[in-house]
Amino acid sequence: MEERDSEAEVRSQRLEVRIRGKGMSDLTIVNALVVPMTEERQSFNGFVRVSDGVITEVRAGAPREVTKDAPMIDADGSVLMPGLVNAHTHVYQVLLRAVWEDLPLLPWLKRIYGAAQVLRPEHFYAGTLLGCIEAIRSGVTTVCEHNFLNPHPECAFETIRAIRESGLRAVFARTIMDTGEIVPDCVKENSDRAFRHIEDIIAANRQSERLSFMTGPNTPPLNTTPDLLKEIRRFADEKSIGISAHVAESRSVVEFTKEKHGKSGVVGFLDDFGIPAPNSIFAHCVHVSDDEIRVLKERGASVSHNPVSNMMLGDGVAPVVEMIRAGVNVALGTDGAASNHSQDLFETMKTASLLQKVHHQDAGVIDPYAVLRMATVNGARALGLGSACGTIEVGKRADLILVDLDAIHNQPINDLFSQLVHCAKASDVWTVIVDGEILMKDRKLTGQDEREVLSNAQRRHRNLMERLRTVSF
Amino acid sequence: MEERDSEAEVRSQRLEVRIRGKGMSDLTIVNALVVPMTEERQSFNGFVRVSDGVITEVRAGAPREVTKDAPMIDADGSVLMPGLVNAHTHVYQVLLRAVWEDLPLLPWLKRIYGAAQVLRPEHFYAGTLLGCIEAIRSGVTTVCEHNFLNPHPECAFETIRAIRESGLRAVFARTIMDTGEIVPDCVKENSDRAFRHIEDIIAANRQSERLSFMTGPNTPPLNTTPDLLKEIRRFADEKSIGISAHVAESRSVVEFTKEKHGKSGVVGFLDDFGIPAPNSIFAHCVHVSDDEIRVLKERGASVSHNPVSNMMLGDGVAPVVEMIRAGVNVALGTDGAASNHSQDLFETMKTASLLQKVHHQDAGVIDPYAVLRMATVNGARALGLGSACGTIEVGKRADLILVDLDAIHNQPINDLFSQLVHCAKASDVWTVIVDGEILMKDRKLTGQDEREVLSNAQRRHRNLMERLRTVSF
Repeated sequence: MEERDSEAEVRSQRLEVRIRGKGMSDLTIVNALVVPMTEERQSFNGFVRVSDGVITEVRAGAPREVTKDAPMIDADGSVLMPGLVNAHTHVYQVLLRAVWEDLPLLPWLKRIYGAAQVLRPEHFYAGTLLGCIEAIRSGVTTVCEHNFLNPHPECAFETIRAIRESGLRAVFARTIMDTGEIVPDCVKENSDRAFRHIEDIIAANRQSERLSFMTGPNTPPLNTTPDLLKEIRRFADEKSIGISAHVAESRSVVEFTKEKHGKSGVVGFLDDFGIPAPNSIFAHCVHVSDDEIRVLKERGASVSHNPVSNMMLGDGVAPVVEMIRAGVNVALGTDGAASNHSQDLFETMKTASLLQKVHHQDAGVIDPYAVLRMATVNGARALGLGSACGTIEVGKRADLILVDLDAIHNQPINDLFSQLVHCAKASDVWTVIVDGEILMKDRKLTGQDEREVLSNAQRRHRNLMERLRTVSF
Repeated sequence: MEERDSEAEVRSQRLEVRIRGKGMSDLTIVNALVVPMTEERQSFNGFVRVSDGVITEVRAGAPREVTKDAPMIDADGSVLMPGLVNAHTHVYQVLLRAVWEDLPLLPWLKRIYGAAQVLRPEHFYAGTLLGCIEAIRSGVTTVCEHNFLNPHPECAFETIRAIRESGLRAVFARTIMDTGEIVPDCVKENSDRAFRHIEDIIAANRQSERLSFMTGPNTPPLNTTPDLLKEIRRFADEKSIGISAHVAESRSVVEFTKEKHGKSGVVGFLDDFGIPAPNSIFAHCVHVSDDEIRVLKERGASVSHNPVSNMMLGDGVAPVVEMIRAGVNVALGTDGAASNHSQDLFETMKTASLLQKVHHQDAGVIDPYAVLRMATVNGARALGLGSACGTIEVGKRADLILVDLDAIHNQPINDLFSQLVHCAKASDVWTVIVDGEILMKDRKLTGQDEREVLSNAQRRHRNLMERLRTVSF
């Protein structure tokens, strides 16, 4: 039985390779400063072997046997670490960088939902591909794309097409909204239509091992009725898929929850419907009480902390330290470029560290290694990929990045983990590997003509800006 | 008379060129998106002409006449903006990146002062040159180096030698301390010795037009007696030089001020000695009252806001919005790499913007153009260089940078000023010019062998780490 499964896996991988038209052969990365991001803090000079997309050997020193002409990367002393996991974003939003500045969450959401009315599949495709390249360039190997709803179901398919073309591993969370009391412009639908769409998406992407799926109650309870939440719980259980939601992002959402549902917080409200669970990932959790943190822990739900976005929208500071201390699995996300401007998870790591230190007025309140864990292994776990990626260990998929610490701004090295969080930059990432496939080498994308992607995105962007002028927000 | 002055200026410039051994001829930068950073928000496609280090023409369109073979840079659509002004740093501290993590200000200072005891001139030279290159690479053209005191007066000379070799414009603020009640390890001296040293430094650098000088009461009143402050005021007036001080960086300093001197704040305390003045720059001002903000405004003192450092040490959030609204000139600094890890002022701009938004829980509380002004023209003004640099205007020195916005993370452009603050990165800076002299072109330093600088810094760093082991903190 095990053998059959393994055979099926190999077949499926080969199919995937064919579909993507790229080689995914064996690979050895030598002469690396390996940072495996396992429980124990460690780093060592060594090598990593990859076979058929899987890590087969992780060792200090140099490999004893090297097959002549076998694919090899000389890491040249660079840090070899797990690819970063962006646990919450809306990749297409790179087209909307800096469009709605200076707005708090609700008026901002009104515009985002308004924009959804004029966004067409070609905008989603062009924006998503551009944003995926930005992600790859900053060392991201997995994104959780919480896709905004649009009247055109094709938009989701085009978003996924772009993600697949980029080569990134991704969780696609398909948003659902069925009400819009204080954000009336959101696109509402009934759960049957939404669930059929999700089933179609899953069916169409069965062959892509790098993709998995979630349901996405958008911003409970602003735009989800209790009935919908019950349905989502049932559907997620039936399909064995996770739930991604924006939770307690601003005070206004918590206030609405109190007024409308008589509950003191969003997590508590969601708990009535069984939404916090081991396969749930809640973005933000800025305004959650100690009691709610306990609920998150007890239910095994994960949180994606998105500090740049929270700061940009003036939401507040999430109780990251408190959640980590309580044992909640806290991952890290950029959020979309409409509320961050960037898809750079290195920048997000430094910001996350700094924000907790200043918020608690305590320089020692958060440890750089904890921040690195948020951006790697915690992210993988939050997305149900804990056994697939997030650390460098034998048996895991080879999602790896090489970070050059020779740049002036990283030198000299006094504390490797701290400097990966506080000194290293997106521009230091020179190689990105997903599933053993090299997506970027020597800072050059292997599978994309960047100039062409950019030029297409610019053309679609001009069109989108014209269409946006027709929307009254 | 005017002609004589101008002749003298040309002579002096030629001398400077000879001393530095580099050419500083005429230059035209064409095909640029010019962002002059003047009062009115503007940007236009145009060109800038430079002659003998001075901006002689700034215009939209293309130049009508171009002298054949005259030096020209095709900006290729890049943003041409004033070089950034880092209004507060300790450049040598790049050797101490991430050495003392997780400490609040006072225990951290104890280590910084302790380290000063074993720092030798060669460490200051090697660290400062490395840090200057990092600054240049992030688009900085002017630094205010608040130099930490060391028993060896030669340390200051070696710091200055490194700055001069880098080609940066700089204000060298020579720190002074004469007491050390709660930070007993600081190096204390009497004012006569300190002032003689400053006079020697000024005399030795008369020929360097890119350098100016300040006195630096280090962290009043922690390590400066009232008598010293009176002396500093007198000396600064006598020499017509400015004053740079760390002011109200942490609550602990304010508390000390209350206990020791019965004053409710540091600015109020300093006002008794006439220290807040138009040629004063106060780093931090995290814990200042509304009354003190009025004092800063009325006395014409400038503030260097250093958000990354304040966050890193858990100091708190400076009332930047309140100070700007009150009319205080607020500049931007990185602070040293021992409390920032970085000398990247692009990163600092984004952090400054985000920190105010989240602190006020108001996304619209600070405007990107105001942040750009902090990092350019306000910085120049704060350092007494308002007529020399900080904007692109005819008659100002040619301190210019070219920022490539074609990188994926900057595209598409929706709001140029916001995206310069929130999207652009140090790695987008490809050309840096100071006084008309090209310090970096196509991301290559023109006057330094970076690998050699790095290798020397690493060697000195190893030695410093050994010496630090002998210090009991």
